[in-house]
Amino acid sequence: MRSEFEFIESIKKRHKLKVIGDDCAVVPMNTQSDQLFTVDLLIENIDFRLEWTTPALLGHKALAVSLSDIAAMGGMPKCAMLSVGIPQGLWKTSFLDEFYEGWHILADKFGVKLIGGDISKASELVIDSFVIGEVAKGKALLRSGAKPGDFIFVTGEIGGASLGLLLLENGTRPGPNVEAILQNAVLRQLKPMPQTAIGKILLEKDLATATIDLSDGLSSDLGHLCKASGVGAEIEASRLPIAKGASLEMALNGGEDFELLFTVPPERQFEVGRLGAVEIGRIVPASSGIKLSGEKEVRNIEPKGFDHFVER
Amino acid sequence: MRSEFEFIESIKKRHKLKVIGDDCAVVPMNTQSDQLFTVDLLIENIDFRLEWTTPALLGHKALAVSLSDIAAMGGMPKCAMLSVGIPQGLWKTSFLDEFYEGWHILADKFGVKLIGGDISKASELVIDSFVIGEVAKGKALLRSGAKPGDFIFVTGEIGGASLGLLLLENGTRPGPNVEAILQNAVLRQLKPMPQTAIGKILLEKDLATATIDLSDGLSSDLGHLCKASGVGAEIEASRLPIAKGASLEMALNGGEDFELLFTVPPERQFEVGRLGAVEIGRIVPASSGIKLSGEKEVRNIEPKGFDHFVER
Repeated sequence: MRSEFEFIESIKKRHKLKVIGDDCAVVPMNTQSDQLFTVDLLIENIDFRLEWTTPALLGHKALAVSLSDIAAMGGMPKCAMLSVGIPQGLWKTSFLDEFYEGWHILADKFGVKLIGGDISKASELVIDSFVIGEVAKGKALLRSGAKPGDFIFVTGEIGGASLGLLLLENGTRPGPNVEAILQNAVLRQLKPMPQTAIGKILLEKDLATATIDLSDGLSSDLGHLCKASGVGAEIEASRLPIAKGASLEMALNGGEDFELLFTVPPERQFEVGRLGAVEIGRIVPASSGIKLSGEKEVRNIEPKGFDHFVER
Repeated sequence: MRSEFEFIESIKKRHKLKVIGDDCAVVPMNTQSDQLFTVDLLIENIDFRLEWTTPALLGHKALAVSLSDIAAMGGMPKCAMLSVGIPQGLWKTSFLDEFYEGWHILADKFGVKLIGGDISKASELVIDSFVIGEVAKGKALLRSGAKPGDFIFVTGEIGGASLGLLLLENGTRPGPNVEAILQNAVLRQLKPMPQTAIGKILLEKDLATATIDLSDGLSSDLGHLCKASGVGAEIEASRLPIAKGASLEMALNGGEDFELLFTVPPERQFEVGRLGAVEIGRIVPASSGIKLSGEKEVRNIEPKGFDHFVER
């Protein structure tokens, strides 16, 4: 699995795709605003399994992952394009209607307009979600501004999507008869919610020195943030808001929770409280590395937040 | 084959994808400019065959088809995002490097910057090309302004890409030992050139009342233009600039020549001469239908310009 991840990362780096920069590309638009562009490619049996989800949930998730990228930059999503490659077996079914309905329900919540797209026949289901957002000029939240001493926050529970993935792999499906904890975890995996409102507040209050969304997992995404900022980090295990039923490993390395991870200067720490975000550690000099302090030991955090079979 | 085409068209119509409008979505950008957005999904063995082309030519074509959409609106392309789903068998090869090189050579010619993209594993090669362009505010060339009496022009030879497709299906490959006519036709299919310069002139001179690019084929694209404008058309068969070796049927129904089809008011017909475009007929009232005048007979032009196996 590592070689696959590394291959994709190296291609992205060589050809200047999203991973080297921030969650979105930032392009000047007019005197007030910059534009944000993001794209997410989801491929059947790599990024999702049809038998684990519903067409409407898939439509929701296809948009949600891109909205999360816009949220991580503090931007507001405006419009979207959607390309779908669809296998012949799904044509005569209501699949696409339900898929678009799920997509539109989420889009309407965020005022996102579908302005175009393309459809082709394919042998497996392929979804490419493209979202355009806006952000106040020069204000986009980046990964690169964290400083030693900054507090590290996460906007909500982590590890739930990873638990949900495990449950799905083992046969649990969302539905009325599923126990609440399991249902929550499964929906966390299948129906993520972008943290657009908190991203907007972080930007408006100029509160975050660095921000990223938790798509690959805390260990990987914290690594990206630290690398971009030229810093290290110390996370306190006891402070991690681990989702019910999830393990510490899931919280560290499971992806797709789509919470925001952000850093705040110490003098403004108290302002974060009302956002409902949880403090999980401090930024330290790069030379100190990226570490997890537990009850008994301090260990390095290695980026393991990537399971290409289901995540990207 | 028809049912496949109709299925895709009906989905595009129901969900307001590109085909109902113009070649691009037009979105206000600032006081001077509108933005143009277009996306083209290319799927292996549906839209292209790896054994018929080279990675570099495929990179070229993936960008060229989207640039053609921008050209058809009179816009200038600015930046692009590219999603690629890539089968495991191509990983360890130089495929992606050559593909991106072909893409970048064309992009550099048009000053297009790659600002992002995504990559995933896939069981077949999937390319989604997204291009963002700009156009003077309110000036984008549309399909909807043609009036009875307008002259109809095409910017270059047609039918060549269709001949090229037939040759590829029958084993011809591009190369130094191929006869010039065949080589031209094959390259017309594999390496289309967007008519950006002419689109720009049409817009700057405010010359065209309606414009479309010939991606689906003259019969289909003329149909789209006439429908959007609420008019009919009369094409003179003897005036069609049929590519060497191609038939009248190829010129009428073969897609992917990526020339521009545009209409010009009669009093400005003489201004088109220096563009090198060829007059092929006149716009008539909708009640007269869309007709082809040959030496001996006049027949209706039915939209047949779609062969989903290789074209979109």
